[in-house]
Amino acid sequence: MVRLLILSKLADEYRCLIEAASLPEIEITATNNVADAKSAGADCEVVFGEPSLIREVLPALKNLRWVQATWAGVEPLLDPTLRRDYLLTNARGVFGGLMSEYVFGYLLAYERRIFERQQAQREHRWDGRVTGVVRGKTIGLLGVGSIGSHLARTAKDFGMTVCGYTRASETCTDVDVYYHGNSLLDFANGLDYLVSVLPNTSETRRIVDASVLAALPPYALFINVGRGSALDESALVHALETKMIAGAVLDVFEQEPLPRNHPFWDMPNLLVTFHTSAPSLPADLAELFIANCRRYLKGDELMYRVDFERGY
Amino acid sequence: MVRLLILSKLADEYRCLIEAASLPEIEITATNNVADAKSAGADCEVVFGEPSLIREVLPALKNLRWVQATWAGVEPLLDPTLRRDYLLTNARGVFGGLMSEYVFGYLLAYERRIFERQQAQREHRWDGRVTGVVRGKTIGLLGVGSIGSHLARTAKDFGMTVCGYTRASETCTDVDVYYHGNSLLDFANGLDYLVSVLPNTSETRRIVDASVLAALPPYALFINVGRGSALDESALVHALETKMIAGAVLDVFEQEPLPRNHPFWDMPNLLVTFHTSAPSLPADLAELFIANCRRYLKGDELMYRVDFERGY
Repeated sequence: MVRLLILSKLADEYRCLIEAASLPEIEITATNNVADAKSAGADCEVVFGEPSLIREVLPALKNLRWVQATWAGVEPLLDPTLRRDYLLTNARGVFGGLMSEYVFGYLLAYERRIFERQQAQREHRWDGRVTGVVRGKTIGLLGVGSIGSHLARTAKDFGMTVCGYTRASETCTDVDVYYHGNSLLDFANGLDYLVSVLPNTSETRRIVDASVLAALPPYALFINVGRGSALDESALVHALETKMIAGAVLDVFEQEPLPRNHPFWDMPNLLVTFHTSAPSLPADLAELFIANCRRYLKGDELMYRVDFERGY
Repeated sequence: MVRLLILSKLADEYRCLIEAASLPEIEITATNNVADAKSAGADCEVVFGEPSLIREVLPALKNLRWVQATWAGVEPLLDPTLRRDYLLTNARGVFGGLMSEYVFGYLLAYERRIFERQQAQREHRWDGRVTGVVRGKTIGLLGVGSIGSHLARTAKDFGMTVCGYTRASETCTDVDVYYHGNSLLDFANGLDYLVSVLPNTSETRRIVDASVLAALPPYALFINVGRGSALDESALVHALETKMIAGAVLDVFEQEPLPRNHPFWDMPNLLVTFHTSAPSLPADLAELFIANCRRYLKGDELMYRVDFERGY
């Protein structure tokens, strides 16, 4: 018998979904409460839930062997002061489609001037001017893992050219041109849209800095759906104020929620959203956990292992 | 030598693009002026341009054999009082991708609550609530020709279910379920989104009426990018006022520009745009004309023939 602790704001929903899969040899404890989890979880060898909550109970999990996170980013568990004597897997493969919805939703809103059209309607003004299109544009992806690959495919479907910047990998066939290492500024040069899907690691910290923003054309749009740490926020404020680039859409920030007095709130050519680009849909994450759990029970290798050192 | 009249607001741009193709045996006259076209066009056997302008010069074109329209909808030339002793071809295959940009731009704006997010930003309010997604939703296409087929493909890419309503054809493999004839209400029932791409014909007139709107679920969104005549506008006003459906996005209207006192301007759950969903991009249309003209010069059958009776 394997004891599973579900520690999540959606504990009840996850319990139903996982029970419906009739996994053999599983005994489930489900809670959204850290104190309950500390006492009930001591015997559990498998934990499924939010990294921010799991972090709080980590020392109490005497029998812990495997944590499946419901998030892609597992920063709360990567703190070097925390134990690392267990297998950590994150959520992958489920966010690509949702990220595509967000990124292309905002790219299309920008090109098709959805906000300006709404304003014209308010003024009862028939505005027959031709809008921009995404077709034929060049998108640059900072990071081409499972999310970046999905964005690349959607971009090809919309008739775009796709550039990808990665450390070394060139596995996505929807990327037309790859860049690596010190060719970051060449990559930025000539993009219509720069989209970061990078995780938070020591190598990605403030990778989108003043020099990258200066290398982008003045008509470029920057979108960040990865982690806020990948952007030098002051450099972006400066780039937008001086019209070095045309605009930005940010879903992630150095500090979240975004502080009340942050300049981002009031910049006219910047849209902020609230770390909501790829909602964690319970059905997706339960399915991912169930698939990985079947492997665990059979002794097979787990999918989506996180390397504590590398950070993803 | 074949004499070509280009009659278009973009006459000069089209002339450059067509001259660059070095078509053999072609002599080009290009103008944006109807009076000039009447005198200069008398000898021309081929005309390329906007149907609304060509209509005005039609009686003066003594040698006319073929008209290639720059539009998909050629209503101005279908008036039964006008001559029909020539080949009429319209623009097809070039609008599908652009229509997809418009339709999915607005669907994503709706599901991802892009307007509400902007309002939250204005209020410096961090709104972390999960938004809707298009994945898993059901889209119904009224009309599955070249534009509808492109919408179907994009919908599949976003993980949606696609229903199609056509007279008889079932040629698009991206449509999951087809409906025909008197199954229109069955088709409407259960759709998340209803999108009309129908042309203006006697059969499509007010096909989206009170009964179709009543058959849609209360959470449904209606988008019209075909022709305004396909919608009973009063029935839509009533359906929106009584919350029979959730919202609508209209790019086309019975009368364009939309009259100043039309109720559509001020309805809160209705977005209007200005017949701008699929801009006619000169490079696309010149390419289409050039390809068809090569066929014409060789005596081959033309692509995109319009049947005057059927209307498309």
